[in-house]
Order: sequence, then C-alpha cells, then structure tokens
Amino acid sequence: MPAGELQNPTENGTEEEAWVWAQIKTEAKRDAESEPALASYLYSTILSHSSLERSLSFHLGNKLCSSTMLSTLLYDLFLNAFSSDPSLCSAAVADLRAARIRDPACVSFSHCLLNYKGFLACQAHRVAHKLWTQSRRPLALALHSRIADVFAVDIHPAARIGKGILFDHATGVVVGETAVIGNNVSILHHVTLGGTGKVGGDRHPKIGDGVLIGAGATILGNVKIGEGAKIGAGSVVLIDVPPRTTAVGNPARLVGGKERPSKHEDVPGESMDHTSFISEWSDYII
Amino acid sequence: MPAGELQNPTENGTEEEAWVWAQIKTEAKRDAESEPALASYLYSTILSHSSLERSLSFHLGNKLCSSTMLSTLLYDLFLNAFSSDPSLCSAAVADLRAARIRDPACVSFSHCLLNYKGFLACQAHRVAHKLWTQSRRPLALALHSRIADVFAVDIHPAARIGKGILFDHATGVVVGETAVIGNNVSILHHVTLGGTGKVGGDRHPKIGDGVLIGAGATILGNVKIGEGAKIGAGSVVLIDVPPRTTAVGNPARLVGGKERPSKHEDVPGESMDHTSFISEWSDYII
Amino acid sequence: MPAGELQNPTENGTEEEAWVWAQIKTEAKRDAESEPALASYLYSTILSHSSLERSLSFHLGNKLCSSTMLSTLLYDLFLNAFSSDPSLCSAAVADLRAARIRDPACVSFSHCLLNYKGFLACQAHRVAHKLWTQSRRPLALALHSRIADVFAVDIHPAARIGKGILFDHATGVVVGETAVIGNNVSILHHVTLGGTGKVGGDRHPKIGDGVLIGAGATILGNVKIGEGAKIGAGSVVLIDVPPRTTAVGNPARLVGGKERPSKHEDVPGESMDHTSFISEWSDYII
Amino acid sequence: MPAGELQNPTENGTEEEAWVWAQIKTEAKRDAESEPALASYLYSTILSHSSLERSLSFHLGNKLCSSTMLSTLLYDLFLNAFSSDPSLCSAAVADLRAARIRDPACVSFSHCLLNYKGFLACQAHRVAHKLWTQSRRPLALALHSRIADVFAVDIHPAARIGKGILFDHATGVVVGETAVIGNNVSILHHVTLGGTGKVGGDRHPKIGDGVLIGAGATILGNVKIGEGAKIGAGSVVLIDVPPRTTAVGNPARLVGGKERPSKHEDVPGESMDHTSFISEWSDYII
Amino acid sequence: MPAGELQNPTENGTEEEAWVWAQIKTEAKRDAESEPALASYLYSTILSHSSLERSLSFHLGNKLCSSTMLSTLLYDLFLNAFSSDPSLCSAAVADLRAARIRDPACVSFSHCLLNYKGFLACQAHRVAHKLWTQSRRPLALALHSRIADVFAVDIHPAARIGKGILFDHATGVVVGETAVIGNNVSILHHVTLGGTGKVGGDRHPKIGDGVLIGAGATILGNVKIGEGAKIGAGSVVLIDVPPRTTAVGNPARLVGGKERPSKHEDVPGESMDHTSFISEWSDYII
Amino acid sequence: MPAGELQNPTENGTEEEAWVWAQIKTEAKRDAESEPALASYLYSTILSHSSLERSLSFHLGNKLCSSTMLSTLLYDLFLNAFSSDPSLCSAAVADLRAARIRDPACVSFSHCLLNYKGFLACQAHRVAHKLWTQSRRPLALALHSRIADVFAVDIHPAARIGKGILFDHATGVVVGETAVIGNNVSILHHVTLGGTGKVGGDRHPKIGDGVLIGAGATILGNVKIGEGAKIGAGSVVLIDVPPRTTAVGNPARLVGGKERPSKHEDVPGESMDHTSFISEWSDYII
Repeated sequence: MPAGELQNPTENGTEEEAWVWAQIKTEAKRDAESEPALASYLYSTILSHSSLERSLSFHLGNKLCSSTMLSTLLYDLFLNAFSSDPSLCSAAVADLRAARIRDPACVSFSHCLLNYKGFLACQAHRVAHKLWTQSRRPLALALHSRIADVFAVDIHPAARIGKGILFDHATGVVVGETAVIGNNVSILHHVTLGGTGKVGGDRHPKIGDGVLIGAGATILGNVKIGEGAKIGAGSVVLIDVPPRTTAVGNPARLVGGKERPSKHEDVPGESMDHTSFISEWSDYII
Repeated sequence: MPAGELQNPTENGTEEEAWVWAQIKTEAKRDAESEPALASYLYSTILSHSSLERSLSFHLGNKLCSSTMLSTLLYDLFLNAFSSDPSLCSAAVADLRAARIRDPACVSFSHCLLNYKGFLACQAHRVAHKLWTQSRRPLALALHSRIADVFAVDIHPAARIGKGILFDHATGVVVGETAVIGNNVSILHHVTLGGTGKVGGDRHPKIGDGVLIGAGATILGNVKIGEGAKIGAGSVVLIDVPPRTTAVGNPARLVGGKERPSKHEDVPGESMDHTSFISEWSDYII
Repeated sequence: MPAGELQNPTENGTEEEAWVWAQIKTEAKRDAESEPALASYLYSTILSHSSLERSLSFHLGNKLCSSTMLSTLLYDLFLNAFSSDPSLCSAAVADLRAARIRDPACVSFSHCLLNYKGFLACQAHRVAHKLWTQSRRPLALALHSRIADVFAVDIHPAARIGKGILFDHATGVVVGETAVIGNNVSILHHVTLGGTGKVGGDRHPKIGDGVLIGAGATILGNVKIGEGAKIGAGSVVLIDVPPRTTAVGNPARLVGGKERPSKHEDVPGESMDHTSFISEWSDYII
Repeated sequence: MPAGELQNPTENGTEEEAWVWAQIKTEAKRDAESEPALASYLYSTILSHSSLERSLSFHLGNKLCSSTMLSTLLYDLFLNAFSSDPSLCSAAVADLRAARIRDPACVSFSHCLLNYKGFLACQAHRVAHKLWTQSRRPLALALHSRIADVFAVDIHPAARIGKGILFDHATGVVVGETAVIGNNVSILHHVTLGGTGKVGGDRHPKIGDGVLIGAGATILGNVKIGEGAKIGAGSVVLIDVPPRTTAVGNPARLVGGKERPSKHEDVPGESMDHTSFISEWSDYII
Repeated sequence: MPAGELQNPTENGTEEEAWVWAQIKTEAKRDAESEPALASYLYSTILSHSSLERSLSFHLGNKLCSSTMLSTLLYDLFLNAFSSDPSLCSAAVADLRAARIRDPACVSFSHCLLNYKGFLACQAHRVAHKLWTQSRRPLALALHSRIADVFAVDIHPAARIGKGILFDHATGVVVGETAVIGNNVSILHHVTLGGTGKVGGDRHPKIGDGVLIGAGATILGNVKIGEGAKIGAGSVVLIDVPPRTTAVGNPARLVGGKERPSKHEDVPGESMDHTSFISEWSDYII
Repeated sequence: MPAGELQNPTENGTEEEAWVWAQIKTEAKRDAESEPALASYLYSTILSHSSLERSLSFHLGNKLCSSTMLSTLLYDLFLNAFSSDPSLCSAAVADLRAARIRDPACVSFSHCLLNYKGFLACQAHRVAHKLWTQSRRPLALALHSRIADVFAVDIHPAARIGKGILFDHATGVVVGETAVIGNNVSILHHVTLGGTGKVGGDRHPKIGDGVLIGAGATILGNVKIGEGAKIGAGSVVLIDVPPRTTAVGNPARLVGGKERPSKHEDVPGESMDHTSFISEWSDYII
C-alpha cells in the first residue's frame, strides 16, 4: 500500500482501517478453513464481527474478565470507548502494522490481533488512559489491574503512549504514571520506565519517537530518551540519552563515548536493529 | 494518625486495623457512587463484607481460583487462616500503609487492596507460609503455584517475610525457599532473591529491615543485605552488602568504594529514593 | 534407579515412565490422605487418570483454557498429541527428573507436575512445536499465546528444545523462533533467547547440551553457547561462548579472560552451580 | 398512573417505560442499601445500566450463556434487538405491569425483572421470535434451546405472543410453533399449548385476549380459546372454548353446560380468579 | 437406630446428626475408592469437609451460583445460616432420613445429599425462608429465583415447611407464599400448592402431617389437607380433604364417597403407598 | 434412503450413521455460512469434530458440566462410552431420525443434536445406564443428577430404553428405576413412569414398542402399556392398557369402552396422532 497513493489523511485512516480489517478477515477465513479445531475460536473472535472495534472489544472483554468483573461489562466498556473515539481504532491499526512490519515472527495481522499480549495490553491501556483523562480513575485503575494480571504488562493508565507501538513479547513491561512514549517506538519485554522515589509529580521517562528499547532495559526518572535513540538490552539508564545515539550497559554508556557518540541514520524503533553496535562496544571482551 | 497518641501496641493494631478498614469502606463507597460501572465490583469485593479479613479472603479466593481449585475452597482456607492468626491481618494493614505512604501512584487503600498484585501476592503468601509451618506443605505449594500463575509473583512458601512490605509492580519477583525479608522493605518488580545451586539447605539471601531493592536486581546465595541498604536497579549481587550502603551495577559495587562506602541516613525501603546516588556513580558516563 | 541395571533403551524409556508415573500416584495418594482440602484437586489432576499422558493432558487443558478456547478442545488436542508421539511423554519424564534432581525446592515429582509453570509451559510448548512442524501454524500460535498469557513463558512454537530441561521459576522466559536448546539445559526465569532485528531467518541463539543460564540473562542473535557453558545471572551475551566456560556481566566477559578462559569440569546445566565463579570474578568489588 | 392523563399513545409508551425504569432503579437502590450482600448483584444487573433495554440485555445474556455460547455474544444479540425494535421494550414493560398487578407475590418491578423466569423467558422468546421472522432460524432455535434449558420454559420461536403477558411460575410451559397468544393473557406453570401430531402446518392453539389458563392445563390442536375464557387447572382441552366461559376437567367441560355455559363479566387473564367457579362445578364431590 | 434408646431429644438431634454425617463420609469414602473418576467430586463436596453444614453449604453454593451471584457469596450465606440456626441442620438430617427410608431408589444418604434436587432445593429454601423471616426479603427472593432456575423447584420463601420432608424427583414443584407443609410429608414432582387469584393474604393450601401428594396433583386455595391424607396423582383439589382419606381425580373426589370416605390407618407420607386405592376407585374402567 | 437398498444390518448401521453425520455437517456448514453469530457455536459443537460420537461427547460434556464436575472429565467419560459401545451411537442415530420424521418442528438433524433436551438427556442416560450395568453406580447416579438439573429430565440410570425414541419437549419427564421403554416410542413432556410406593423391586411401567404417551400423562406401577397403545395427554393410568388401544382421562378409560376398545392400525409412537380419538371420547362435552 504505497503511501503516495492516498490523498486525504482522515480518509486514509478510514481506508487503511478498512483494508487491515479486510485482511484480518481473509486471514481468519483461510485459517478457519485449514484448521477446524481453531474455527470456533476464529469465528467468535473475528469472523462473527462486523468491525475491528467489535472484534477487539469482544476479544479484550473475554481476555480481561474475571469472576468479579464480567465480560459483558468489559465488552460494553470497550465498545463504548472505541465507538466514541475513532483515534483508538486508528492507533490499533498503526500498532498492527508496526508488529507486521517490524517483527519477522508476526505472520499475519490476525496473529497479532489475537495472540500478541503486548498489542492487546496496549489497546486496553489506551481505553484505560481515556477513562483516566475523563476522571473515571477508579475504573481506569481496575482495568489497569486486570491488564497487569492477565498479560503481566503494567502500564499506568495515566501514561501517554503514541501510535505505531510494538511491545514485543511484552511480559514484564512496566510503564509509570508520568511516562510518555512517542510514536513508532519499539519496546521489548521486561522493560521498565520507572520513577525515582516516593515523591509524586513528573518522575518517569519521556521516550522520543522512533526509539528502540532492548529487552530488560531499565530507564528510571524523568529523563529524556531522544528521538531515534537505541537502548541496549539489559541497560540501566538514569540520565538523558541524546537523539540517534545508542546507550548500553549497566550503568549505561553511550556507544562511541560521551563526547562524540556515534550517531545512526536509521530509526531503530522501526528498523529493530538490536545488535549492530556490537563491534563498537569496546568492553565486550568475550 | 500520630503514633504517639496510641498507648497499647495490641490495641493499636486493632485500632489501626479498624481505622484502615473504615477508610477502605469510605473510599469504596465514594467510588461506587461516582462510577456505577464499578459499583458491583466494589460491593462484591469490599462493601458487602464486615471486615478486612473477609474482604481479603473473598478477593483472594476469586482471584486465585481455577477450574480445579474452587473459589469456595480458597475462600474457606483464607478465612480460616485470617481468623485464627490475627498477625496476618495486622501485616496486611502494615503493607497497605506501606503502599499508601511510599508509592505516589497509590491513590487510596482500596486501590492497593483491590489492584496491587504485589500486595495480594504477599497476603496470599503469608497464608501459604502459615500452611507450610503447619506441615501442610502440599497445600502450601499448590497455593504458591496459583499465586505464581495469577500474579507472576513466585515466593516460596517457606520464605519468611516481615511487615510493612511493598512489592511495587511485583511482576516477575522470585523469592527462594530460605530467603528472609525483614520489616519495611520495598522490593521492585523482577527482583530475584535466588539460590546458589542444587544443594539444599540455607542458600538464599537475607534482607535486613528497611532495605530498598531496585527493579530487576538479582541477589543470589545466602548473602546478607544489611539493614537500610539500597540495591540499584539491575544490579547483580553475590556477596554481602553492609548496612545503609548502596550497591549498584553488574557485578554490583558499593557506591563510594569498597573500603569507605557512602552511608546514607534515611531508610531507603521507606524513602524509596532510587536515584540519588547517580552523581556518585562514577562510571556512569553517558 | 541405577542406569546400569537397564539394558534396552526403548524399554528403559517405557519402564522409567511407568516408574515415574507410579511415584507420582504414590505421592498424590499420600498427600490426598494427609490433606483433605487438596484431595479433590489431586484426584482430578492425577489420581483419576490411568496414565501420565492423560493426567498431563487434563491438567494442561484446564490450565490453558479460556472462555473462547475450551478445556475440552485443548484436552483433546493434548491427548491426541501425547498418544501419537511417545517422545513427548518421555521428554516430560526427563524434565520431571531434571527438576527433581537439580532443584532442591522440588520435593516430589507430583509437585513439579502440578505446580511448576516452567515444566507445564515446556510440555505445552512441545505440543505446539509438533503442531508447527505439521504445518498447523495458526493452532500452534494460538496455543503459544495461551501459554504466554497463563504462565508468562513465551516460547515460539518453532523453537526446538531437547530433553531433561529445567525452566526454574520460568516467569518471563522468552525463546525466539529459531532458537535451539540442547539436552539437559537449565534456564532460570527472565532469560531471553532473543533475535537481532526485523530481518527473518536464523537469528536466535543455539544453546548447547548441559548449559546453565542464570536468572535474567539476555542472549541475543544467532550465537552459539557451547556445551556445558555457564551464563551468569543478569548477563547480556551477544557473541559466542565457548564450551565449559563461564560468561558474566553486562556486557558479558569470560571468567578467566578472553584468551584463556577458565574451564570447568562439571555440567552446570545439571550441577546448577550458579556462584562458584565469584571468587574469580575480579571486578566484583563490594 | 391514571391512563386518562396520557394523550399520545406513542408518547405514553415512552413515558410509561421511563416511569417503570425509574421505579426499578429506585427499588434496586433501596434494596442495595438495606442488603449489602445483594448490592453487587443489583448494581451489576440494574443500577449500572442506563436503560431497561441494557439491563435486560445484560441480565438475559448472563442468564442464558453457556460455555459454548458466550455472554458477550448474547448480550450483543439482545442489545441489538432491543435497540432496533422499541416494541420489544414496551412489551416488556407491559409484562412487568401485568406481573405487578396480577400476582400478589410480586413485590416490585425489580423483583419481576430479576427473578421471574416466566418474564425473562418471555422477553428472550420475543427476541428469538424476531430472529425467526428475519429468517435467522438457526440462531432463533439455538436461543430457544438455551431458554428451554435454563428456565424450563419451551416456547417455539415461531409462536406469536401479545403484550401484558404473565407466565406465572412458568416452569414446564410448552408453547408450540403455530400457537398464538393474545394480549393480557395469564398462563400458569406446566401449561401446554401443543400440537396434534406429526403433520406440519397450523396445528397449535389460538389463545384470545384476556384468557386465564390454570396450572397444568393442556390445550392441544388448532383450537380457539375465546377471549376472556378461563381454563381450569389440570384441564385437558381439545376443542374450542367460547369467549368468557370456563372450561374445567379432563376432558374439559364448560361450567354451566355445553348449551348454556355460564358467562363471566371479568377478564380472567387480568383478574386471575382461579376458583370462583367451584360452587358451580357440580361434579366436585369431596 | 431404635428411637427408644435415646433419652434427651436435644442430644438425640446432635447424636443423630453426627451419626448420619459419619455414614455419609463412610459412603463417600467407599465410593471414592471404587470410582476414581468420581473421587475428586466426592472429596470436594463431602470428604474435605468437617461437618454436614459445611458440606451442604459448599454444595449448595456451587450448585446455585451464577456469573452474577458468586459461589463464595452463597457459600458464606449458607454457612452463616447453618451456623446460627441448628434447626436447619436437624431438618436436613430428618429429610435425609425421609429419603433413605421412603424412597427405594435412594441407595445411600450421600446419594440424597449430592444428587436429590428436591432435597437440595428444600434445604436452600429453608435458608431463604429464614432470610424472609428476618426481613431480608430481596435476598430471600434472589435465592428463591436461583433455586427455581437450577432445580426447577419453585417454593416461595415465605412458605413454611416442616421436617422429614421428601420432595421426590421434585421437578416442577410449585409452593405458594402462604402455603404450610407439616412434618413427614411426601410430595412428588409437578405438585402445585397454588393460590386463588390476584388478591393477597392467606390464599394457599395447608398440608397436614404425614400427607402424601402424588405426582402432578394440583391443590389450589387456602384449603386444608388433613393429616395423613393422600392425594392421588394428577388430582385437582379445590376444597378441604379430611384426615386419613384419599382424594383422587380431576375434580378430586374422596375414595369411598363424600359421606363415608374410606379411612386408612397408615401414614401415607411415610408409607408412600400410591396405588392401594385403585381397587376402590370405581370409575377406573380400563 | 430406501431401506431395501441395504443388505447387511451391521453395515447398515454404520452406513446410516455415516450418512446422518454427513447430513449434520452439511446442515451446520450451511447454517454457519448464513449466520456468522452462530458459526463459532457450530464449529465448536459439530464442524470441528471428526465423528458424531466426538461431537456428542463434546456437546454433552459442556452441557452437563458444573464447577465440581468438569467438562473434561465428562467428555472423557462420554467418549470412552461411545467408543467402547457402538450401539450407543446407533441408538443416537435412530433417535435423531425419530425426531426428524415425527416432529414437524424438527427442521434438521443438527437442530435435534444441538437443541433437543429430550434427545440429549436420552443419550446421556444411555451412558449412565451403561455405567449402571457395569456396577459403576455412584458415577451413574451423579450423571443422572446432572441430567435432571440441566435438562429437567429425570430418568433413573437403571431404566431400560430402546431405540428410535422421541422425548418431545421433554421438560419434567420422570422415568423410574425399573421402567422399561420399548423401541419407537414417543413420549411428550411431563410424562411420569412412576413407582407405587416405598417397597423396592419391579415397580414401574413397561412401555411396549410404538407407544405414544401424551403430555402430562402419569403412569404408575408395574403396569404394561401394550405395543402401539396411545395414552392421552393428562391421563392417569394405574392398570394395564392393551395393545393398539387408547386410554384417556383421569382416571384413564379405554376409548371405545373396556370390553370392546377401539383398536387403531397405525403405530401412534410413530404417527404421533394425538387427537384423532376426540370424536369417540363421549364425555367430552364442551
């Protein structure tokens, strides 16, 4: 789908959403035909629904429900949110595309829609965030709790998250209350965007557009990770990281040195290049 | 609630518990009124119960049940434990206060009671621990397994844990069989208090009072983390850490140096100061 | 059970499986008698079944089911897989023995069978892998998703895993699509065997026989961890590690130095010796 | 609510529905306050909903769901039906009023809405009937099956039923495919409106307005029960019954004789007078 | 257990209850051993419990729960009722004995306890009745509704029922608000003790001690069925029936004639003699 | 499918079963395509299964399960029964054909398989009966109890039932321990085949081949209903009914008189002619 062919951005959104939803239905239809044992699941989650919003609301309602928080209540909540705010659905579509393009293990849109806990947690978070901004905080926090229990993904409902996000694997991700995540960011599992103590206020990281954060990285405090920066797996980052640089290690250092860090041209949040800095990583002495 | 006003410690406990429970009911009442979609949940978990013990037993029973381990069985188990051992409830109250005071994202006692998987896992662990000490080990281990599945918090039922504990975020916490955790300790997510191999016996860390352990820290072996010590996020600690010092890095080093480590005055498990050591952390060279 | 007593390997497998299953039944019988509150659970999961295959299929079916993926469907799926491929059951038995021998906290085979999320995730993965190799990929991925949700263990169904595996604690383990794990490997929780970016193809680690990978270690890319190697907790490994050496730290270095690394005699995946290298770890300066 | 005060029938409907819904909320609020153990139930079923349609859809969805027919699917189905056809809701209101006025054991509208299986079965039937008329027969029959299982009320989805219906107690009611029930009819439990054999076509009873059918009465074949007629409990009726007459016995006879049957002035379906004919029932010889 | 051996009635009750409970445990133990597929069920419902009250509360809680009325809530409700009012348990024991003695198909006490819907509905009704007398009417009616849904037994919570009751088969039984049932009564399925119209007040039958009411009998209005009377299957009774007489037919007549009805010596509610009157039933002309 | 074309009766059975199963799949496929909301249900219950036995086992397991009797256990039980005894499946096919041919409201085989509680209760009863004959009585009675709860159909597991049975509507049917039902019998709802008191032994009706029993009929005692007899709705039958005669009324009389009863030529159990005797029923005087 070449971007140039599309004129009107609003229409684009709608057109793109329709196209992605059509793809999802086609994929699910194909899979239901080839695998009867899965057909019931695919019909209930995708093929019986008339729109991506309804499919997502159904799937999230059934994933996140519990004996004290019924699926019908959650389904209603999600459906109302998706109906009243089209940006939620366009963000979901952007996330689906992000997974499809960036993750070689993502074999189809429907694969992501049904199975990616990071994708599902992110969509549910967006609804929780909306409730938070509407001052429906107890409900937002209850939803947050269900997401953290079911997906082991713990994103505070106040955290602001852009579009085109890939939470890959996602287990163990923690994102604090005043964190901000830009667009086209990729975050691996066990990543923490944490606070700095018991004082309230703005105390969590701000992640620029196009950032890539490797597995197990811990970023603490109201620090700024510049756009297009890359944080190596397992890094512990406590101060700002300049745009398009790479920070690695515990404590994290800039690849190329503090004074003249190497700058990369690509957008690591999109290219997902985890390891090209290895040759430059001088201490790596195995 | 100034501590000085209270004379009799036993009475204190009871008075404090009554006060916290009254707060919880007030909060839940307020939230139920402002958010009808949540009212059913708040009535079933809090407002229909006559005591914190019953509320907790109900909530844990419904959270931890499965198709092969029924909620009624678990509810009974929790209720019997809380009824027969008042220290379980006073520990829960201390933990509620810890979350309320130390975690700026904790907006109310009821928020913690209902939604904090670390809080809930800890209370369920205390019951599992009690079963363990009563030589009801298979049941203790079955309960342990449910806690690990549902909350992704894996605390061996033999581990001994004090009061006033905050397991913040909590996903991925692992605490081994012979570990001991003192009072007023704060432990972030992904923290491991692990063993040293396949030999049995006393092989896990001993965490002193008032310790703060940052996200993703790994402490292995029968080592002693002195009271009031602080372990930086992502640190890997394999030997003792002196009281009121800070260990950071992988492998962990003492801030200020091995010979004359900096000593802090505050109790980090209570102050939750994660990052003040940054300026002293000489290798941090971004 | 001295290995020398047994002649025919095939028969061995069968005999050993029968012996382990008999042990499990004896243990469960004893526990059911001493703990009436657990008896119902033990009868439904173990004592009512005529074979380990049926017990496992029942237990996994009930653990992994959801409102949209019924326990009866999953039970059927597991039972068919175990019936048609005896190697699945012999691998389960090897894993049970691994847990029993290597983990001092594993008090019985039935304890592992019922409660170890790493064990259960691994057995379910083997079935998902079998579906993957039969080109039933959508079903394999759906099963993968349930395992990742329920156990917080995320093993891509294409990953190849040997026998005698211990996933200890297991929460947060991530194993990528083209990863290979040999026999008699022990892997602690939060371990990542991850890829290197958005390009497909062979991009994940290859773990040799007898390797031990400590908690929170991250191994990225198509690197080879030689047989009998040991990876320290929290290490970040991006290049090959020679056999029987130990890599520690972030970035990981070889204990003893790159040129002449110390070589150990034991098989760490079996001995589970996590910490003996401490004295050699020169930078560890607390 | 004097009927004379209302001018516009359409508006009346809406006004009356609003009034009844307000009553229901008031009743539920009062009961929730006086009975905390029931508050959660009352909030989830009534107080959290913004309209009678949503409340009914939620309640029916949760009552009629099963492991293979999810509550979310049914909720959606009911909500769509009630939204697209306002006559369904006005019929529900008429039925609520019928129960409230005619049944002295009906203490409130909410009592009927929540607890009367006859009321609930009737509302669900109306949705099934709508699906039937839309040629969505397999779905109508599946819904019919759930109603018959859950409420033991078996009304064929093709049967046509008026408004202001009271199915009192309702267990065991059977209404065949071509049966028609007029307005303001009261039908007790175990009543059969059955067919005459294996030939298709119009083969079930036609019940006029205002008819009262006593418990256990069996009416078979395409017979006409005239408006305002009364069928005694346990009667077996195989031929037409004239308007405003009373048929009793097995086989049924007209009270007063075939030639000059007694005619009553009241509308028995509304007056619910079961027994005033006793003195006239000559054979009754105890 | 000869009655003469027992001196103190209170003690008797307690002793008898202990004896019956011991029998139930012995039966369940025997069945669990001979039928592994049932052992889990028997342990969860009987063998894991320390008293009949707890077993019944557990069983009823799990039978009557729904997605909007949780088993833990009901379990609590039943346990509190049974604990606070010992007469509920002694009535249950009397009913168990009634089933065991009168119903040749009742093979054991545990068979009745677990499987007889009439027995279970009656015990749940007694709790609903207790709530009713405590002015907890909305809760009583909600419980009533669950009993009617689950067991198809519809006993108004205000109805007063004695001890030693056998509701045999029980499906379709309807007992109205002001009905009274004496001791040692046996009532078959589809029996109605119904009212007379829409006027409130005392309007339902009064059933004397030792009465037997055959399947499908309908008794309407505030009529008195004298002690030891027998009502034939399918009868429709609208006026009083004298003690120790038999009423049959629709409309019901007294066997032996209105003036000098035959009087039997036995207590039909206990002897369960349904058919001995056949020879006297003159109209029976097949 | 002309019977004459088939030679070998055993083969016939198998061929017929295959043909009916193929029909069921075709019907379900068609319905799934036309009604997406039902497709998930149709795939899970029918289209994902490889045989009628598996489909029925799945459907019954999910219908009859409860929180204390899991679907996986019941599925296993049914599957084992159907696998080991092919006559169970051939009886199911005969019953499917009976419903299809005799009930004009039965629009397809799949309609009966999925939705007819009488059909489902009968198939589950046959399995319970098999368990009973294998002396697995506690399990048979537990299954009986589930059938009675879920379908309100109460058939004692010892009762013997032929093939080609139609339990139409079925709610409230009660069949006692020593009852026998022949082949090609049709029984409407609320029919009782009951006993005669508290003495054990052979005490229930014996129903000949081809009998039709109308709604609400009560047949009590060890009486013989001759082959091809017809029992009118609401009749109470206490003595034998000769073959091919019609008994009606309470008490029942033979149509045509006791001495020279009218004999019909057809087989009413197959022709389902409920009402042709009306003209002969002299007392019917409306």
